[in-house]
Amino acid sequence: MTFLLKLHSAAQQNDSWLCVGLDPDLDRLPPGLGGSVRERIAAFNRCIIQATQDLVCCYKPNFGFYEAFGIEGLQALEDTLRAVPSHVPVLADAKRGDIGNTARGYARAMFDVFGFDAVTVNPYMGGDSLEPFFAYGDRGIFVLVRTSNPGGSDVQDLRVAGDDGTLEPLYQAVTKRALSWDRGNLGLVVGATYPAELAAVRGMAPQAPILIPGVGAQAGDLEAAVQAGRDARGGGALVNASRAVLYASSSETWVEDARAAADELRQAINHARRTP
Amino acid sequence: MTFLLKLHSAAQQNDSWLCVGLDPDLDRLPPGLGGSVRERIAAFNRCIIQATQDLVCCYKPNFGFYEAFGIEGLQALEDTLRAVPSHVPVLADAKRGDIGNTARGYARAMFDVFGFDAVTVNPYMGGDSLEPFFAYGDRGIFVLVRTSNPGGSDVQDLRVAGDDGTLEPLYQAVTKRALSWDRGNLGLVVGATYPAELAAVRGMAPQAPILIPGVGAQAGDLEAAVQAGRDARGGGALVNASRAVLYASSSETWVEDARAAADELRQAINHARRTP
Repeated sequence: MTFLLKLHSAAQQNDSWLCVGLDPDLDRLPPGLGGSVRERIAAFNRCIIQATQDLVCCYKPNFGFYEAFGIEGLQALEDTLRAVPSHVPVLADAKRGDIGNTARGYARAMFDVFGFDAVTVNPYMGGDSLEPFFAYGDRGIFVLVRTSNPGGSDVQDLRVAGDDGTLEPLYQAVTKRALSWDRGNLGLVVGATYPAELAAVRGMAPQAPILIPGVGAQAGDLEAAVQAGRDARGGGALVNASRAVLYASSSETWVEDARAAADELRQAINHARRTP
Repeated sequence: MTFLLKLHSAAQQNDSWLCVGLDPDLDRLPPGLGGSVRERIAAFNRCIIQATQDLVCCYKPNFGFYEAFGIEGLQALEDTLRAVPSHVPVLADAKRGDIGNTARGYARAMFDVFGFDAVTVNPYMGGDSLEPFFAYGDRGIFVLVRTSNPGGSDVQDLRVAGDDGTLEPLYQAVTKRALSWDRGNLGLVVGATYPAELAAVRGMAPQAPILIPGVGAQAGDLEAAVQAGRDARGGGALVNASRAVLYASSSETWVEDARAAADELRQAINHARRTP
């Protein structure tokens, strides 16, 4: 099954556009989890997955949180992947991108070695750098377009001259190029913190699934983001929350609290996407 | 000792601007190396390092070649780092970049866990995404500007409007921003395949060390690249070759052949940089 079918199936089955970011932060893990770093991270993620697997359309571990602990962290990532039920897709938030044979190595790592269903990639190095990812036709390739951080404007909002001489923001020029690289497996990344930019990207790419990070801890406006990101057919966005779910509480009921936070977000997203 | 001092010291001691890229390709390793993937990669790299450590200013392993083999590949990377003599700096070609706490995770991975002296980073997500890297003042942070692949032009050559309304290529606008992010530890990456762009970047950044990939297998013009990349004081470039050294031959004398190829490149670079 392709990533897109798996995503739509999970979204339908769980009636959810919520993507939970599995971003373990040792300083914020609940105190009850003992053992090595690997064991603590894997145990935490397993609890979060068990508590939310009927509430999400996707999980999204970010590599930075695992690489931070070297080999041990990446082993915890492998343990985590084994805990995800097979019908829920997993998106590697890796933001990789490199030339030819190196990009093939990264694509191999993400899809053949770790076995992810989808990956985020960085467009700065151009189409040939991402071709080895797009060549995996059954996996989803999410191109960064307008990221959720304020500094994203440093480069992504630069005004570039189009073919007809008019100026457009770089993130829109990148969206056009991403559409030209698509092999039927393109996704885009636009932060919830920039709903106007999200609406512009959705207008240019009516069919691509859009990963929308930045709700919750990053304080993006959930309703505005969901309404800007939904497509005309009423589908196609993954609204990511990480800290707002993972660290919903630090009390003994943290697992139940994480589930409650996820369900609240799921329902808020559903309300927003169904409001005309 | 800071990365910059270590780099200049190694460059002076070995009279070399040659950076050797440690990019192991299982299909091209000499047949005599047995054992596991980890053992074969580590043994190959150890031979290359022993044969070239008095000829280089830096080593540059690219993460993609290691991640391609998962945990085992990254263990081989750790083994490799232990084989580099302490006076030769090692640059992680990782092209990372992400927001706030994720970027901190990647920086921690590169500098505290693996112990690299420098790293390549991707500028697309802007200054706040790279700040956690620049915060390591004793390490080198090499920002991608104009990469060596043809597709680099898809985004990096877009014409952007400057503050005064004139247009400039995106890679130049990125160079200006990179200079504004510098905390005394900035490097830049410009492919040898684009000597005119290299000269333009050197004009804008007279002091930053420039990593110049793309000589050798990628067929950049070595002499043109070195002359465009040297700064007014006659220092400051790392000319990278990977395949041209690693796979100089597949005969039984591959170690000696790799050394000879490295020394030939070192001398060609020295000739070019000393030609007025």
